[in-house]
Amino acid sequence: MKKVAITAAGIIKFSKTEKPLDSMMLSAIRPVFENTKNLEQSDVDVVLTSTNANRNYLANIISELSGMKPKISHSVESLCNSGTNALVSAYAYVSSGLADVALVVGADKADNPGLVLNWDMARGEYVHPIFWASMFTSAHMRKYGTRLEDLAYVSVQNHKNALDNPYAYFEKSFSLEDVMASKNLTDDVRLLDCSIPCDGAAAVVICSEEKAKKFTDTPIWISGIGQKTISASFTKNNDLTSMESTKSAVADAYNMSNKTVDDVDVVELHDAFSVCEIIELEDMGFCQKGKGSRFVRDLYDTGNKMVNPRGGLIGAGHPLGATGVSQVVEIYQQLTGKAEKRQVSNAKTGLVHNMSAGSTSSTVLVLES
Amino acid sequence: MKKVAITAAGIIKFSKTEKPLDSMMLSAIRPVFENTKNLEQSDVDVVLTSTNANRNYLANIISELSGMKPKISHSVESLCNSGTNALVSAYAYVSSGLADVALVVGADKADNPGLVLNWDMARGEYVHPIFWASMFTSAHMRKYGTRLEDLAYVSVQNHKNALDNPYAYFEKSFSLEDVMASKNLTDDVRLLDCSIPCDGAAAVVICSEEKAKKFTDTPIWISGIGQKTISASFTKNNDLTSMESTKSAVADAYNMSNKTVDDVDVVELHDAFSVCEIIELEDMGFCQKGKGSRFVRDLYDTGNKMVNPRGGLIGAGHPLGATGVSQVVEIYQQLTGKAEKRQVSNAKTGLVHNMSAGSTSSTVLVLES
Repeated sequence: MKKVAITAAGIIKFSKTEKPLDSMMLSAIRPVFENTKNLEQSDVDVVLTSTNANRNYLANIISELSGMKPKISHSVESLCNSGTNALVSAYAYVSSGLADVALVVGADKADNPGLVLNWDMARGEYVHPIFWASMFTSAHMRKYGTRLEDLAYVSVQNHKNALDNPYAYFEKSFSLEDVMASKNLTDDVRLLDCSIPCDGAAAVVICSEEKAKKFTDTPIWISGIGQKTISASFTKNNDLTSMESTKSAVADAYNMSNKTVDDVDVVELHDAFSVCEIIELEDMGFCQKGKGSRFVRDLYDTGNKMVNPRGGLIGAGHPLGATGVSQVVEIYQQLTGKAEKRQVSNAKTGLVHNMSAGSTSSTVLVLES
Repeated sequence: MKKVAITAAGIIKFSKTEKPLDSMMLSAIRPVFENTKNLEQSDVDVVLTSTNANRNYLANIISELSGMKPKISHSVESLCNSGTNALVSAYAYVSSGLADVALVVGADKADNPGLVLNWDMARGEYVHPIFWASMFTSAHMRKYGTRLEDLAYVSVQNHKNALDNPYAYFEKSFSLEDVMASKNLTDDVRLLDCSIPCDGAAAVVICSEEKAKKFTDTPIWISGIGQKTISASFTKNNDLTSMESTKSAVADAYNMSNKTVDDVDVVELHDAFSVCEIIELEDMGFCQKGKGSRFVRDLYDTGNKMVNPRGGLIGAGHPLGATGVSQVVEIYQQLTGKAEKRQVSNAKTGLVHNMSAGSTSSTVLVLES
């Protein structure tokens, strides 16, 4: 298997705007070319767009508008982990030798499809993600004694981290009291426990070892990949305090990279709701099962930003098709030492965790400098 | 680069029905399992759906409904060559070593999006494919003296071939007079020069050499791949008598497989309109430029079915996201000697040509027994 690197990244401010999807994608692509010495449009073999928008031929439209004539171009959709699905597909093209340079660009608008699981209609209220979040929350509270206050710390910390992220949707912090007092959407999920759908776009360039040397002095290697789909519906989860697809994906990613959780310096994980961060930290081995709340609290108390330094989905916003790519952008910035105020010191190994629809599918990536 | 094989294929009758997209996909998948010894749902690492339907999380839904829990699952969209884009993506997953077994299933309904190039609105009437077909036709007539009668032979031959294809949309033949007298849609394109959007689905299994031996005694190898995108709009074509993306893709596919046109025993090519078949035969080297009409006429006169034995898009119908996969299914059947009445004798090497939007992008595959 050929080595594959990330050599450039671009992102735009997450917001709610009138900007069309195409324009957002082009704005995320621009810095990729501006900041990469020797990268020309003609170098790009693969253009993959990642979105939930109802569009046709989008990868070709973006290619034409950006002056690229790639060999391969198409759009990839897998709801909230569309972005990392596109990224792993790009990895496969390069690793197989079919291509040398791939551009992945993800974007969505706040009102694009994918916000409700409309195929789950026959399963009652599960059609809205808030209900699977609520069931995960009540199960974790019942089994491990997790408290509403513990969940609130996830939100407080991620909104706080987002203050140092110029591309984040939120530009203000919230106190524990703010989160605790925010509107109850279910018995145990409050408004500030939720990530917010918004507009956003992000792009990365992925290439072979040979090309990486031409484009940058600081390539970031994709050394571990794990993906797993268990179903399309949350109701297939056997244990509502754990994420089966995430556990499978992270095991494969660690195995492929010969790394363990102890090697991880920084992680972007999919905090669609507060409870997700706690469960994912446990399922990915950052702490024992049931100790996720304690782990989050320790991070908060010590001012440690190793988890979701850009603010995660809760602080930075959740433009579905862009989310996975934006997580990769953050870890790329961290591992190249360009994360500015968010920089985790001496970060050499990073993890990305991106999932869909109540963790019915997950992607985990290990990145290394 | 690891060797990659096709080991199974499934297809349903192309028609206009009330059957939902999901049901069509499941019906195409069923024979793949029924006809493959030792293939279990748990063997499938990758599930890629190919469609233009406005759907979310379709690959996961199809995986769940089929009892599969793959590592990787997502949907691929690239208008009319979505199917071969998904297939090449599956190739990359297997060839890179990320996966061993991939299932690609394509489907569309007659009224799904993608029938008009709605992003081309600013370019006037080009929004409907009939207009780029008309411009290709008039350019080829002007430069090479191609006649309306020559174009009609493409339609006559493909409808005739489709009579031997139990999965074809059309079940009747048309005489030269029928085609010549069919309704003029533009000055030079008649109704029977056009492929017809319809409902359809097709599936293939792609796997590593090691797995191929487990699943079948007659694997078909994907030995050549070429893809090229030049733009998203037909108006970017420099020469309206030729297809730039097709020429680039076929050169790469021949090069990768160390084959030439002389090695090709059977070809499925993208006859969205009669003129396409003539231009593509020329651009892929089956005859000199300008001699495509003569080539088609010779096939007809000698009863040679080496081009579009299943009837092509004109005879078999054009369910967009299924089309590329169904072309691969046909070549798979031909090279395994299972094409029944359509069988091209002693077929060992086959070619698939699938394109989108006036050949602004093309895929060419070389398959070998």
